[in-house]
Amino acid sequence: METTLIYGKNAVIEALEKGEREFNKILISNNSRADIKIDKIKELSRQNGIVYQFVAKEKLNVLVPEGKHQGVIAQIAPIKYIELDDFVKKYKDTNSSVVILDGVEDSHNVGAIIRSCVCAGIKGIILPSRRGVLINSTVEKTSAGATNHISIIKTNSLVNAIQKLKENNYWVIASDHHAEQNHYEVDYTDMNFALIMGAEHAGISKSLLKLADFKVKIPMLTNFNSLNVSNATAIILFEYVSQLCKKGKENEQKK
Amino acid sequence: METTLIYGKNAVIEALEKGEREFNKILISNNSRADIKIDKIKELSRQNGIVYQFVAKEKLNVLVPEGKHQGVIAQIAPIKYIELDDFVKKYKDTNSSVVILDGVEDSHNVGAIIRSCVCAGIKGIILPSRRGVLINSTVEKTSAGATNHISIIKTNSLVNAIQKLKENNYWVIASDHHAEQNHYEVDYTDMNFALIMGAEHAGISKSLLKLADFKVKIPMLTNFNSLNVSNATAIILFEYVSQLCKKGKENEQKK
Repeated sequence: METTLIYGKNAVIEALEKGEREFNKILISNNSRADIKIDKIKELSRQNGIVYQFVAKEKLNVLVPEGKHQGVIAQIAPIKYIELDDFVKKYKDTNSSVVILDGVEDSHNVGAIIRSCVCAGIKGIILPSRRGVLINSTVEKTSAGATNHISIIKTNSLVNAIQKLKENNYWVIASDHHAEQNHYEVDYTDMNFALIMGAEHAGISKSLLKLADFKVKIPMLTNFNSLNVSNATAIILFEYVSQLCKKGKENEQKK
Repeated sequence: METTLIYGKNAVIEALEKGEREFNKILISNNSRADIKIDKIKELSRQNGIVYQFVAKEKLNVLVPEGKHQGVIAQIAPIKYIELDDFVKKYKDTNSSVVILDGVEDSHNVGAIIRSCVCAGIKGIILPSRRGVLINSTVEKTSAGATNHISIIKTNSLVNAIQKLKENNYWVIASDHHAEQNHYEVDYTDMNFALIMGAEHAGISKSLLKLADFKVKIPMLTNFNSLNVSNATAIILFEYVSQLCKKGKENEQKK
């Protein structure tokens, strides 16, 4: 069985509570001191018939560098990607905005973006199969378990994916620092949107920029014109959340 | 001489262009292919009388893990921290908001926060000497050179620092997910503010929360109530930037 690791106490608890992932086994360091979180992991494992096993810390260090696993590593089945067609069908007629990452290469950034997406009620994240990062252990860890709360869609062609979204009445918004419109000048509250964020250095591919209905920039107060991509994503998504809250519509989006 | 490393082509170019750091020496991998950025580093070094030297890639790998340095490491004098008294004097009567990090422990987060601060025109960042992260190579790298564009203040007592800021007419804002007020309900445009952001898990210490003039939360659309601290900082700072831009005041802040 192909296997993915999640590690760190909070990430493992999150995955156990969500119950959407198939667990192979949980490894716990036999040096771990008694701890409310370790107890919770054991309790949840028992409830769900998942095997846990005490092993030497050195065995954990082989799988994940010391200092990162906090004494707990779960071996789980790899994340299930879903097809865009299935996503669109599943969320037909409901609010279901998505974020598209055009070649983002840093796992920490992808993890933090997924975390922000889930906090902002975004329903899907679309990643290209052949550029940038897919879901790996670092992404899962950095996302603090958020990968279990969002549909993750892998596609061979972002162009085709965007065209399909447009056919299904999504508005396509590209974050582009050459844009004229400021990000807060778009009303995000009455549409399903697909927000495209570009790679750390290269930005968004031209072929995708051409498909955008809106191009937006985040204005800066200095000439140091260089936000981290996960921070830029959070800024735009939480402008959307603020707009919803100001209209008293935030409850319509919660589910 | 105590020495700090900055590595990666963009970070080294940024530091050379800014010219605020004292360079000891720049090491370039003799495997580096001809490259417009390496050429720029050599050119800037010559212009500024800085020694560069070609060395085996293995020598670089000893200083910084392979895959991170991109073939360039600069040895520079450590960052100069400034005293809060000097900061307050320097910026007297001008716009000079600051961000206070109460024990943020992840270097990537601190670097990304400094980057967002500089983009948002924040003038200072205040770090406690004995908790959380100070400026290290990872912070400098993640900040993409932003550490050279902001005053970095180290203090033995955040309580004393906040009291001094209050005496100098700063308004103290704490990001706290128990707050009642939403972050976008504060008008940030007519004050100098000191925004306190808490540690990744523990949040802001009670002794600091008590000193806050405003406590603000970022509303979320799901129960997954857990933003990365650098994303949370970016969301609040760019709410401030948006407010300034909407009032047409952004140019007053630029300098």
